Amino acid sequence: MAKRLLPTFNRVLVEKILPPSKTTAGIFLPEKSSKLSSGKVVAVGPGLRDKAGNTIPVAVKEGDTVLLPEYGGTQVKLDDKEYHLYRDEDILGTLHD
Amino acid sequence: MAKRLLPTFNRVLVEKILPPSKTTAGIFLPEKSSKLSSGKVVAVGPGLRDKAGNTIPVAVKEGDTVLLPEYGGTQVKLDDKEYHLYRDEDILGTLHD
Amino acid sequence: MAKRLLPTFNRVLVEKILPPSKTTAGIFLPEKSSKLSSGKVVAVGPGLRDKAGNTIPVAVKEGDTVLLPEYGGTQVKLDDKEYHLYRDEDILGTLHD
Amino acid sequence: MAKRLLPTFNRVLVEKILPPSKTTAGIFLPEKSSKLSSGKVVAVGPGLRDKAGNTIPVAVKEGDTVLLPEYGGTQVKLDDKEYHLYRDEDILGTLHD
Amino acid sequence: MAKRLLPTFNRVLVEKILPPSKTTAGIFLPEKSSKLSSGKVVAVGPGLRDKAGNTIPVAVKEGDTVLLPEYGGTQVKLDDKEYHLYRDEDILGTLHD
Amino acid sequence: MAKRLLPTFNRVLVEKILPPSKTTAGIFLPEKSSKLSSGKVVAVGPGLRDKAGNTIPVAVKEGDTVLLPEYGGTQVKLDDKEYHLYRDEDILGTLHD
Amino acid sequence: MAKRLLPTFNRVLVEKILPPSKTTAGIFLPEKSSKLSSGKVVAVGPGLRDKAGNTIPVAVKEGDTVLLPEYGGTQVKLDDKEYHLYRDEDILGTLHD
Repeated sequence: MAKRLLPTFNRVLVEKILPPSKTTAGIFLPEKSSKLSSGKVVAVGPGLRDKAGNTIPVAVKEGDTVLLPEYGGTQVKLDDKEYHLYRDEDILGTLHD
Repeated sequence: MAKRLLPTFNRVLVEKILPPSKTTAGIFLPEKSSKLSSGKVVAVGPGLRDKAGNTIPVAVKEGDTVLLPEYGGTQVKLDDKEYHLYRDEDILGTLHD
Repeated sequence: MAKRLLPTFNRVLVEKILPPSKTTAGIFLPEKSSKLSSGKVVAVGPGLRDKAGNTIPVAVKEGDTVLLPEYGGTQVKLDDKEYHLYRDEDILGTLHD
Repeated sequence: MAKRLLPTFNRVLVEKILPPSKTTAGIFLPEKSSKLSSGKVVAVGPGLRDKAGNTIPVAVKEGDTVLLPEYGGTQVKLDDKEYHLYRDEDILGTLHD
Repeated sequence: MAKRLLPTFNRVLVEKILPPSKTTAGIFLPEKSSKLSSGKVVAVGPGLRDKAGNTIPVAVKEGDTVLLPEYGGTQVKLDDKEYHLYRDEDILGTLHD
Repeated sequence: MAKRLLPTFNRVLVEKILPPSKTTAGIFLPEKSSKLSSGKVVAVGPGLRDKAGNTIPVAVKEGDTVLLPEYGGTQVKLDDKEYHLYRDEDILGTLHD
Repeated sequence: MAKRLLPTFNRVLVEKILPPSKTTAGIFLPEKSSKLSSGKVVAVGPGLRDKAGNTIPVAVKEGDTVLLPEYGGTQVKLDDKEYHLYRDEDILGTLHD
């Protein structure tokens, strides 16, 4: 089984971060408080080309923590680990402390 | 939980302003007099690229008070506060006294 | 409540002109003779950008009397007055005596 | 009531020509022999802009007699006269003797 | 009644050629052997403009015999003769002996 | 009846190759083993124009053996022979021994 | 029967890799653990043209192992072997150990 995937075009490979079921203070979190999930960027494609033929770099980079849309994302299994593949225009933003 | 979101492309993060249920003179406002709501811009993305590869700056900036469309907007929770994410082309305008 | 709205992109803020129910000679006008309405332009946006990145000025300007399409237009309340917001490409033309 | 309309973009204001119910020789014409109608161009807009930002002049000019499509056209009343507003790309051609 | 039509844009005015019901050898042709029909080009428009603002000449010229698509074409009566109006991109090709 | 068709734009005229019902070794082939069919290119159009106004040559040339899509293709009769007309972007590839 | 197919435009010919029904350790794999399949690139087209008329090379090359989308792909038989034809923008990425 292949271990690494290099996405094509503006695709982004993300490993989802599962929200903790309890807060750090131990309070049980009701079912995920927001419909959106987040994840870590594992690999990005080379980017799309614009009409003038230039390659547009992908909007996020490896290592970023990103906010993912409610829908979409293709499930991908690599080396028995689960990832999700998105187009960069569907990623909502990068998360920071 | 992440505290800050840097939106991608031409996305705009807005904190909605809840309309006062009474006017300053104390008169009880019937249920929101207009279907549109307003909000404060908290963060904006770098902008979209046009066909010639130039980045088009976002139409509003951090700190603007903006008029929001009746529909759309993705709900986002950050540090237990609620925000909404819009594309800049859906924001109707900036509000001024 | 905000008093002024600066529209974004190619949006145009219009105050509708209510057609007189009687002609100047006093003859009672049957229900509005035409489905189209007209209005006064109150504010215009900076315009859209074309593919080459140039800003295209809005097709009408503040103070113009314009012919409005039968449908469309977003209702906007500012300082208890009612306005309507259109995209400039939906405005049919400017009216002149 | 406004007397003149300056159309926007590539819109064309046309006054329809009602086909004679009888031929010049007096023969009664059965209900309009063709579904298409014709009209006189009364006013034209400045034209649309192409992607490179140039304004494309409208395809017909004031005074032209034009062949109108079977459908479309927005009815407009000006000074109690009836006109129809078309986009220039919907006008089929100019008629000549 | 107008006698001539100058088509707009990339429109092409065609006079249909009715297929002979019998072959030259007199053999009765079953109902039109092919669904496609052909016709003579009577007039062509100036052409469409491309994004860079250049006018693209129409793909066929006056006098060409052309193969017409199975569907489409607007019926036009001029001087009691029947014609059909097509966009040049819908014309399949030019016919030659 | 016309004998030759010069296709317009990026259209390609193809004469279909009917697959042999038996293999060269005489074994009866069950109904066509693949849904795709192939054919010989008889004539090609001048090509389409791109946005910059350049003509893009057609992707295949006269004499090529091509793999045809499962659907599409307009049936054309010329001189009692049957051909099919495709757009070049629908032709899957060229076949070689 | 043709033995080789040169794809047109940005089409990619792929020979699917059938996942082993058992792991190397002999454990029987339940029906394919992921909906996605992979394959070996056998041939690629010359690429599409962008609006400026430049040819955009295909995103993958002959010999690559690629991750294929869940749907799509046209089945092609060549010399009794089965292949699938994709557009390069539908190929999710290249697989590496």
